Amino acid sequence: MLPQSEICKVNLPRAAAEIPETFVYGEVGRLNDHMLNVMRATARTLEFHVHEESDEMFYVIAGAMRLETDAGCVDLGPGDLAIIPRGLRHRPIVAEAVTILLVEKAGTLNPGNTGGAYNN
Amino acid sequence: MLPQSEICKVNLPRAAAEIPETFVYGEVGRLNDHMLNVMRATARTLEFHVHEESDEMFYVIAGAMRLETDAGCVDLGPGDLAIIPRGLRHRPIVAEAVTILLVEKAGTLNPGNTGGAYNN
Repeated sequence: MLPQSEICKVNLPRAAAEIPETFVYGEVGRLNDHMLNVMRATARTLEFHVHEESDEMFYVIAGAMRLETDAGCVDLGPGDLAIIPRGLRHRPIVAEAVTILLVEKAGTLNPGNTGGAYNN
Repeated sequence: MLPQSEICKVNLPRAAAEIPETFVYGEVGRLNDHMLNVMRATARTLEFHVHEESDEMFYVIAGAMRLETDAGCVDLGPGDLAIIPRGLRHRPIVAEAVTILLVEKAGTLNPGNTGGAYNN
């Protein structure tokens, strides 16, 4: 029986539950030049914003959210994954509560381009 | 009410269930230079192999699997995510059945470096 390794292994619901506050990123890994973060969000609509240098992946671990974009909107529930292409103006809308995994290139997010509510 | 957009939205368990065979990749999206695939696998141990050019992300949608590596092994269940750093020799071991999301750089996988069982 081999020992459990130092390889990054994270349980996403548990990692998200351990973040003390909503709207705060919890890094769960790095994949090449991309960062993986989990976050819990509650009722809030962020401002429209754009990431010029990276596509952005949303994966819903629990709850529900809407992504509104200049190309239309998608409603996401548990197990749903959506990718916002770079350059597309979008905003997340959380009616009640959602727990998500976000993946984008490291350095993509900053207070000026996340719609104003997320720390990073 | 905005129309549902052309933005890629996929329900991972459903996408995996729609793949007609086990051990066959079903592409569910592209994120920058990375590809996202779902797959169902049943009892099989693949050969050890290495991806020299990309880290590899495993996310367990349902079921269980083990990742055995030269740095030790990790057991993964539903909601678990693990990243194999590029260059690390590894093999997936599926005792019963697993449904997974795999993310790595496009062009990473080929029959010579996937342990021999996966189409791509």
